Amino acid sequence: MDTFSDQASYEAWIDANCPLPRGFRVASSSLTFVPDERPTLEPYRMNLSLMLMDEPTNAFAGMCTRNRVVGAPVLVARDILSGQSAQGVIVNNRIANVCAPNGLSDARRIQQAAARAAGCDSSLLFPVSTGIIGWKLPVDPMIATIPAVFEKLASGTPRDFATGIMTTDRYPKVVSIRVGEGSILGIAKGAGMVEPDLATMLVFVMTDLRVDREMLRRVFSRAVDASFNRISIDSDQSTSDMALMFSSGRVNGVDESLFARGLESVCQSLARQIVRNGEGTAHVMQVKVCGLSDEASCRAVGKAIVNSPLVKTAVYGNDPNVGRIVGAIGNHLSKAAPETNIDALSVRIADELVFSEGSFRLDREKEITLSSYLSRAAMNPRVRGYPQHDVCVDISVDFGTGQAESVVWGSDLSDEYVHENADYRT
Amino acid sequence: MDTFSDQASYEAWIDANCPLPRGFRVASSSLTFVPDERPTLEPYRMNLSLMLMDEPTNAFAGMCTRNRVVGAPVLVARDILSGQSAQGVIVNNRIANVCAPNGLSDARRIQQAAARAAGCDSSLLFPVSTGIIGWKLPVDPMIATIPAVFEKLASGTPRDFATGIMTTDRYPKVVSIRVGEGSILGIAKGAGMVEPDLATMLVFVMTDLRVDREMLRRVFSRAVDASFNRISIDSDQSTSDMALMFSSGRVNGVDESLFARGLESVCQSLARQIVRNGEGTAHVMQVKVCGLSDEASCRAVGKAIVNSPLVKTAVYGNDPNVGRIVGAIGNHLSKAAPETNIDALSVRIADELVFSEGSFRLDREKEITLSSYLSRAAMNPRVRGYPQHDVCVDISVDFGTGQAESVVWGSDLSDEYVHENADYRT
Repeated sequence: MDTFSDQASYEAWIDANCPLPRGFRVASSSLTFVPDERPTLEPYRMNLSLMLMDEPTNAFAGMCTRNRVVGAPVLVARDILSGQSAQGVIVNNRIANVCAPNGLSDARRIQQAAARAAGCDSSLLFPVSTGIIGWKLPVDPMIATIPAVFEKLASGTPRDFATGIMTTDRYPKVVSIRVGEGSILGIAKGAGMVEPDLATMLVFVMTDLRVDREMLRRVFSRAVDASFNRISIDSDQSTSDMALMFSSGRVNGVDESLFARGLESVCQSLARQIVRNGEGTAHVMQVKVCGLSDEASCRAVGKAIVNSPLVKTAVYGNDPNVGRIVGAIGNHLSKAAPETNIDALSVRIADELVFSEGSFRLDREKEITLSSYLSRAAMNPRVRGYPQHDVCVDISVDFGTGQAESVVWGSDLSDEYVHENADYRT
Repeated sequence: MDTFSDQASYEAWIDANCPLPRGFRVASSSLTFVPDERPTLEPYRMNLSLMLMDEPTNAFAGMCTRNRVVGAPVLVARDILSGQSAQGVIVNNRIANVCAPNGLSDARRIQQAAARAAGCDSSLLFPVSTGIIGWKLPVDPMIATIPAVFEKLASGTPRDFATGIMTTDRYPKVVSIRVGEGSILGIAKGAGMVEPDLATMLVFVMTDLRVDREMLRRVFSRAVDASFNRISIDSDQSTSDMALMFSSGRVNGVDESLFARGLESVCQSLARQIVRNGEGTAHVMQVKVCGLSDEASCRAVGKAIVNSPLVKTAVYGNDPNVGRIVGAIGNHLSKAAPETNIDALSVRIADELVFSEGSFRLDREKEITLSSYLSRAAMNPRVRGYPQHDVCVDISVDFGTGQAESVVWGSDLSDEYVHENADYRT
């Protein structure tokens, strides 16, 4: 993805390059309310955003969080996903509707009001919420806003919708790709925190390519696994994470492998943007782990590295503290796979070998080289464009005993807390 | 433990109240060196600290990290622990001697040089290191400093030793308790980071009470499990964590339960001080989890709460974002124990019920009460004394289905990163 000189040119790029696939309309409108639970009486602003298909489709798919505590929208979504048809989503930000008193009936009321306005069966619309856990939705003001949302449907753009569903996101995340005669459009809202175990990730993918329900579900599941499940923001962890996909079937389909490739590239781009979008993120780490017998084991090692606070803070401080990488690997293995053979373990940062044959391979010159590499890999939106640039910190780990590999993305960690960790060796 | 108006009065308190048990001597001295791996040629300062018993003892015990990647000192310690006698420790800070080229022979050289100076067999001395992972020890300057350390043995105090082994610690951690005719003295070095998965924790416990080797090992193992294994700084995770205990047997022993109670209180006090000592720590959380069938399951839920970055940042911001607590519980259970019955789950902060019967119990008044409670529980060394005060944020979780319980301690998380998380609802 390109980077841009400022927000306006980025937004102009979205408008020019990310069209709605045929058969879809979107819109967003806002309201204000005072939550019952808020200590002060200052009002909150909430956006209500709608995606509506011209017709119901049976070619839709979705994946929800596996958290044991889930929001009411997840309960409703599981229901819709087990059925035969869907026609759209109605999304609010600000309040996630998780374990709020009467949360399920609140979600149903929003769903029903939106369906009435759309003239469709309420079971066809996913009510989706993101934001604070535990507080109640302002159902009446939300329902009162629905007509305003529908009025905007004629002119709403993917950028309106992507901006409407944001919470702490730095910028709207929209990706479009042309495939055959049609396109795949992906919009994500994700996790404005640096270490957002519990921050909601929402993903909506739309395509006008004709695709069979079963193939859509199979291909979407694989694409999610190869993208959102490989970033440190685990999609299975929030109380509200959800990834939904819809096909309007308005244009001729393509063969499965071509479709899968396109979808995977959309999902991977969104996943990396979610990482890059983390509040305070200065570096994105791309960790490649190979040489174990299966992909899942490789991925777990990669996640242990990108999730280690000590690795994150060292990277933030441009400190090639490679001991922390090896420590994180050892820590993970001690709990997850203590029998793993580490005799042939080697670790590289960029092209520099830093660990092999049980010992670190470090000297003054290599430390200087690595420190300079980390500095160059830092994002600096003021200098290098909006909303990001595409430099990563490349870390590769090879166990040397098997054929599998996996790539995982994660962000660094900045803060006061960093002073102690990033400056530990200075 | 008391708090003090300044560092000098805290140190005076240690000197007056934490005497060396009979049969032990301690000392510390410093040196400077330039690490081969340091990008600049500025020298580092390192302390070399010694604990030496008048005679070897067979009543000693120890626990080491279970990380798959361990420092050379851990390899040597495992060896000594499997033997029949020990007489002391020689500890350096600054460099942890983990996977450094020739690290094991470097550790052996220090051990041998110290043993020569002590006139004892080298197999009786534990060489212990803490600090940067991956770099080499400055063996020659360390050996050259050993005579200076031995010269100070006659007058060295527990405070000298406790200060000498510090890395990023805010203050020396020393606890002493009188038991029967003797005493138990504990000294810890811990983990100056707020989320120090891989920061080294070192614990040294000395007693002059006569205690049988097997009883010492049994009781020490239980005390470590009830203290250092219940803080968010997991003692099994660093590459170098070590807890060692020695008895000189100079005074009459006491019965096992009395001894165990005294030792547990020393270890728990040190463990809580390690948490409170975290750099940037503003609140200490004390999480009590009950109502499951076994202590390990309760403890795991407690650790999931105190380790959640989103819970930590909310507590730092004095924001009673109880949704994050329940989210962290659900996230943990989804991976560790998905079958757990949560129908009767209830959560309290201080005495306020915030979650029960599947829903949050929140309103404006309760939010104000909780926010004020969190503010009052914040540490403020300038106002409230040095090095700490003993207020905790009390969180209790009851699953209501079993009889087990566990208490876990952890710190909050402060930083830039906090701006996004702590202010999420403002």
